[in-house]
Amino acid sequence: MTAGRTLPARETRVPVGLEEIEADLPCAVTEELARFLAVRRETCADLAPEFVDAVDDLSAMALGGGKRLRPTFAWWGWRGAGGDRREGGPGPDVVLRTVAALELVQACALVHDDLIDDSDLRRGIPTVHARWSARHAERDWIGSSERLGAAIAVLVGDLALAWSDDMLRGAGLDASTLARVAGVWDAMRTEMLTGQFLDVVGHATDLATPEGVLRISRYKTAAYTIERPLHLGAALAGADDDLVSCYRRFGTDLGIAFQLRDDLLGVFGDPAVTGKPAGDDLREGKRTLLVALARRHPDRDAAAPVEHALGLDDLAPADVEAARTALQRLGVVDEVEERIATLTTSALDALATADVGPEAHERLTALAAKATRRAF
Amino acid sequence: MTAGRTLPARETRVPVGLEEIEADLPCAVTEELARFLAVRRETCADLAPEFVDAVDDLSAMALGGGKRLRPTFAWWGWRGAGGDRREGGPGPDVVLRTVAALELVQACALVHDDLIDDSDLRRGIPTVHARWSARHAERDWIGSSERLGAAIAVLVGDLALAWSDDMLRGAGLDASTLARVAGVWDAMRTEMLTGQFLDVVGHATDLATPEGVLRISRYKTAAYTIERPLHLGAALAGADDDLVSCYRRFGTDLGIAFQLRDDLLGVFGDPAVTGKPAGDDLREGKRTLLVALARRHPDRDAAAPVEHALGLDDLAPADVEAARTALQRLGVVDEVEERIATLTTSALDALATADVGPEAHERLTALAAKATRRAF
Repeated sequence: MTAGRTLPARETRVPVGLEEIEADLPCAVTEELARFLAVRRETCADLAPEFVDAVDDLSAMALGGGKRLRPTFAWWGWRGAGGDRREGGPGPDVVLRTVAALELVQACALVHDDLIDDSDLRRGIPTVHARWSARHAERDWIGSSERLGAAIAVLVGDLALAWSDDMLRGAGLDASTLARVAGVWDAMRTEMLTGQFLDVVGHATDLATPEGVLRISRYKTAAYTIERPLHLGAALAGADDDLVSCYRRFGTDLGIAFQLRDDLLGVFGDPAVTGKPAGDDLREGKRTLLVALARRHPDRDAAAPVEHALGLDDLAPADVEAARTALQRLGVVDEVEERIATLTTSALDALATADVGPEAHERLTALAAKATRRAF
Repeated sequence: MTAGRTLPARETRVPVGLEEIEADLPCAVTEELARFLAVRRETCADLAPEFVDAVDDLSAMALGGGKRLRPTFAWWGWRGAGGDRREGGPGPDVVLRTVAALELVQACALVHDDLIDDSDLRRGIPTVHARWSARHAERDWIGSSERLGAAIAVLVGDLALAWSDDMLRGAGLDASTLARVAGVWDAMRTEMLTGQFLDVVGHATDLATPEGVLRISRYKTAAYTIERPLHLGAALAGADDDLVSCYRRFGTDLGIAFQLRDDLLGVFGDPAVTGKPAGDDLREGKRTLLVALARRHPDRDAAAPVEHALGLDDLAPADVEAARTALQRLGVVDEVEERIATLTTSALDALATADVGPEAHERLTALAAKATRRAF
């Protein structure tokens, strides 16, 4: 990761306009992040050159992939609320910087989640803790490679979380807009951490009821990935309560649909596309709605291959295949597909009642399709 | 931890004045924190009742002890710069809330540090990861107790870090003061994480030179505990560069002296006072200046008991005693004591040149004595 070296050390950016940003919003977000991280990289290099490796790992994680879903929803939440036409409101460059800060919250969530789940790969590249465990072993350091990797991943995630706030605070929002945005930002992070907690405890208690699983998705994914980013966009634009309420219904339903699609991809997805080994969710023993529905299915024999595969460290391709076949035969895959379709429809219904312009409506509809379609 | 239940659910506080706060500043900080955490507890209870246990663990950590050094230095940094007499500046209640937010950064640092060091006790009570590992075992949950404890501690630390920012942002500072304070706040957290990173890597590479150890103390303790809190107080007051420069010299020297005192207590301290087992720093294998000086001592035989004790899991009282005797015989304890005295003197010299009133001067001098004295 040498992105930092090739970018300007200080912020020498020219103000960018709406059209330029929207020509490729994910790319504009990535560039904004890269600029922020390049400045921070230099600060850290001055403090301690050896710390730069950790900063570069964070940059690799934050810049090296991802669909920029959260900033994109926040951006179109702002545009849909007419934020770009509001006298005295933040300009497109300030909004871009604000929504890009969401990606640093996400970088923290990914680094810490990968550590908690002990995942070795993320988007096809080694995770932070795996990377440092490998460095520990290669360099013949003392103590446990695993513990060292875990320790550095804790700190790198903290760095991302701290920097997300620095980026928000430094985005250039006026005081009243920052105060509005902060309310949403605060709620979003607490909800995300609540969802992660429920997920960890749910796993340890083997509590996988459909209701329990959906509640976790509500916080961990729906609120954090779609509902609150849209709400944040609305807050940036000073939107009224009616629009916020439409956005939140749209975001909640779409967010759960998105999680359910992700669950299906975690079992049936192509490793070349997901960046994870085939059936990785099974190996990790994730308690998804698929699993919860299979568990309460009366035909215990037919569900046995799913139970067998869950959390199996040396999951063989045949185990994955057997679990996949079982999930299909039990009708569980169809049930989840139906639920995705129903949730997507109700999300779009909520959006239809929202007072957003045709352009934002079109973009949000396209995002809904993208978040829930069969392959990415 | 039921502090949350006995406190008002919403902020119904009456504005507090300077004298009232200064009558017992640590207590005022604790009450401010308790108020913030009580509101958050209620939010979390609404989200998921089972998450409240984790919030209560954080509250127990944040409210249950600690000397409130960072808020105290920040407060007197503000007062020393004449912040209380500045027209249009933040009032005492707003300053109190701002400096109390430092304790949530510290709560994150403690929870994550204890996890990284695998410490079971902090201030005499079980650490967050130890607490959750024990719950896991008691409740017969599935999987590894240790991994569950670690996962929850990662999330609880994240919660503290996220909330520290929420508390800062919501303290009631005007935009220009918040911008000044944010610069210091941002630097402080990055420096703290740099110091923790260097500490972890230093431990894994067994690199304990006096210079290396002192560099870690510079970031991990001096900047984070004294220099930046004072600087933050100066920023709250809109102090000039001269005063900031005096504060920073005072804070850096005093901060390192404080770390060296802490190192001595970590080996020679009374468990009843430190809240940790006797010689805990030895068991944890901490690379302190004491250890670094013992290591480079030419008399290898005399230094052997120190090397022997370092990182010994089943450290016996006799091992601790032998290491203590060796450190004294080698003259290393005296050397560290001398260094503490020299640093404290140079810190006080820097303070003497600072344009602060007699009251702040007296308090900062008293704090310097408290931070470096032989027992707490």
